[in-house]
Amino acid sequence: MPATEVAASIRAGRRTAEDIFWQQMACIELAEPEVGAWHYVSPDTALAEAQHVDRFLPLAGVTFGIKDVIDTANMPTGYGSAAYEGSRPVWDAPIVTLARQAGGVMLGKTVCTEFAMSSPGKTRNPANLAHTPGGSSSGSCAAVAAGMVQVGFGTQTSGSIIRPAAYCGVVGYKPSFGMLNRTGVKVLSDSLDTVGLITGDVADAALVASVLAERPELMPRAAPRRLRVGIFRGSRWHLALPETAAALEQAASALAEAGCMTRRLPVPGFFEGLYAHHDAVMGWETPRSLAYERLLPAGKLTAVTHAFLDQLSQATLASYDAALGALETRAGLLDQILDGCDVLLTPAAAGEAPLGLETTGDPVFNKVWTLLHGPCVALPVCKGPLGLPVGVQIIGRLGGDADVLAAAAFIAGALAAQRGGI
Amino acid sequence: MPATEVAASIRAGRRTAEDIFWQQMACIELAEPEVGAWHYVSPDTALAEAQHVDRFLPLAGVTFGIKDVIDTANMPTGYGSAAYEGSRPVWDAPIVTLARQAGGVMLGKTVCTEFAMSSPGKTRNPANLAHTPGGSSSGSCAAVAAGMVQVGFGTQTSGSIIRPAAYCGVVGYKPSFGMLNRTGVKVLSDSLDTVGLITGDVADAALVASVLAERPELMPRAAPRRLRVGIFRGSRWHLALPETAAALEQAASALAEAGCMTRRLPVPGFFEGLYAHHDAVMGWETPRSLAYERLLPAGKLTAVTHAFLDQLSQATLASYDAALGALETRAGLLDQILDGCDVLLTPAAAGEAPLGLETTGDPVFNKVWTLLHGPCVALPVCKGPLGLPVGVQIIGRLGGDADVLAAAAFIAGALAAQRGGI
Repeated sequence: MPATEVAASIRAGRRTAEDIFWQQMACIELAEPEVGAWHYVSPDTALAEAQHVDRFLPLAGVTFGIKDVIDTANMPTGYGSAAYEGSRPVWDAPIVTLARQAGGVMLGKTVCTEFAMSSPGKTRNPANLAHTPGGSSSGSCAAVAAGMVQVGFGTQTSGSIIRPAAYCGVVGYKPSFGMLNRTGVKVLSDSLDTVGLITGDVADAALVASVLAERPELMPRAAPRRLRVGIFRGSRWHLALPETAAALEQAASALAEAGCMTRRLPVPGFFEGLYAHHDAVMGWETPRSLAYERLLPAGKLTAVTHAFLDQLSQATLASYDAALGALETRAGLLDQILDGCDVLLTPAAAGEAPLGLETTGDPVFNKVWTLLHGPCVALPVCKGPLGLPVGVQIIGRLGGDADVLAAAAFIAGALAAQRGGI
Repeated sequence: MPATEVAASIRAGRRTAEDIFWQQMACIELAEPEVGAWHYVSPDTALAEAQHVDRFLPLAGVTFGIKDVIDTANMPTGYGSAAYEGSRPVWDAPIVTLARQAGGVMLGKTVCTEFAMSSPGKTRNPANLAHTPGGSSSGSCAAVAAGMVQVGFGTQTSGSIIRPAAYCGVVGYKPSFGMLNRTGVKVLSDSLDTVGLITGDVADAALVASVLAERPELMPRAAPRRLRVGIFRGSRWHLALPETAAALEQAASALAEAGCMTRRLPVPGFFEGLYAHHDAVMGWETPRSLAYERLLPAGKLTAVTHAFLDQLSQATLASYDAALGALETRAGLLDQILDGCDVLLTPAAAGEAPLGLETTGDPVFNKVWTLLHGPCVALPVCKGPLGLPVGVQIIGRLGGDADVLAAAAFIAGALAAQRGGI
């Protein structure tokens, strides 16, 4: 049951938040042994929250999973690392407080990779347990995909919301940089890290974001205006697998059938260079943000994390400064890429979720958008050759979150209509 | 003894870090009962650090006071609030780790206002104990002014480094936004908060910043190139007390005598509007960043903090969005204000530190510069009518930290020469 329906049914008195709580707990009991989405489930505190929810609050009874790089005072916060296993912050991150104040019920902490980097947790892809759910917001995406919660909190430095959302077949929403408060999140890169949402559908992402950002304009629009959609392959299209090309074509044709203006956009000459800028910003900032952790006794951090930090550390100050310089014009760069369109339709990931749990996949189709700070939505479109979900990504202007959410809802509707028509 | 001399004498084998430690502890023992700069002094850990310093490290033996909004694992971190008194983070903020790795010795945590806002701590101004040291980096500025440490860490959202530095007669350096890693700092405003340094002279600020930011170009320059200095009064000059006008004139005339090109700059029409933008950004972000704390039981936070948060909360989303829009062009706004000059000479505060400890003074001459993210240095110039220090502020372009530090060093030298000549 989506968040919009949970809140509406509780408001109408048809259900109680406690009903929803028990329903979600039953789902967790059923699916969790196989999926492993949770680092910590907190039934007692969640039940108490559900029992005290004011049913007229906008997110009344909506259940949340909180990525374990986000601080919580009444649940342990391990940041995905054995180094901090069981540690307990003195506060909730504001985004958690705000969700609870709006009626949300916090079920627990979801698994993430170590410090939201590349060392995977235990989570499996609900669509096929032999495959990675992606990362770093692994547990939040898997929990939503398995129906355990309506909403997962995620964070993204490269592609940590959009990629796992696409792999798990759910909606991932990385808002414009700074739109959701990120205080109390373990920082990797101060210039990139963004808090976002994982939900079952676009309307849920829009509802929750509109409440948490206090931006009514994000609320699901009944009839979005005539959208101009640019089909954008990017400079690394050669890495897109056939299922991704198929998903993009399917979304584009659904849009065209629904009367949208679609246009294939060229890749600006500067685009490929933005990859190096992303790597420079993350490469310079992240090893320094983890300065304390890097000095912990050997064995506290995984070898994968150490290797990743060593690789990031190759970034030079000159490359970092060049990247910051380019970023000063990020709004203009996004405008140039959009070339008069309202939003872009572009890959969310290379293809289906890779086999195995050793890696969480490649953020190649996400890095540039995170760097440019614009809003991104991952939307499931079809299944790939292995039967796993394949998505597309909608990109918008800086602050153009309402457009991106409206476009994503519109595409989802057009895809559903197309399926209905076949 | 300045940090440059501490490190040089230890490197040369003339002193040991342990000598310096004992010397600073003696100073603390003498002055602390009156000044009250410290929230927590940690002689045992500091002595151990001093005893193990590699004497060839760039900051070998340099002692630090850490503003108590900055996380430390081996010392309590109370964020200036009774609500978190005695709490102990699981990590050091990276800036602390980096300072220690460079040879710095962490003496303890310095007093700050509650959550670095306006509810004052116990600290008194070393120049006159009846006066405020300013805030929110109260203890760091007072500790440096009283000679207890070479370096204080500070943070600034409005004027929390520059203003108390001016009040205490020390050098305050707020770098370009993001230059010093701010992970592990209690966030007020994600778009404004900046970590900076308080030191006894400009060379110390340059040395420490060059090491912590890994930017050799910040190192004190022997002979700065011919500086073009703009004298800039700003749109609220009517709030400047006579001693501030005198300090500005004295610095300007010292520069002119030293052969600098000085020029009185007009105040651009947009300048006054930037105050509203600062208030909108801080006003929108801060109450939300403290969402968890605002729900703590009555009495946990001071009435001053509650009142300040209520006042901030009047900011509207429309004003916030307008401010963010203006901020997109911040580099250009700074360029326009600088009007071809390398740096600006402008007030650091309205005048001498106010009498009493109930308030920490007005950041009226700091807000706009924090908003614009450029580098700022507070430099002591003269005494006011009550015998308290009066300073000026040097402002530079985004990323123009080397220029600002060189200009500040040059002005300090010119002032010393002028005094010598009289």
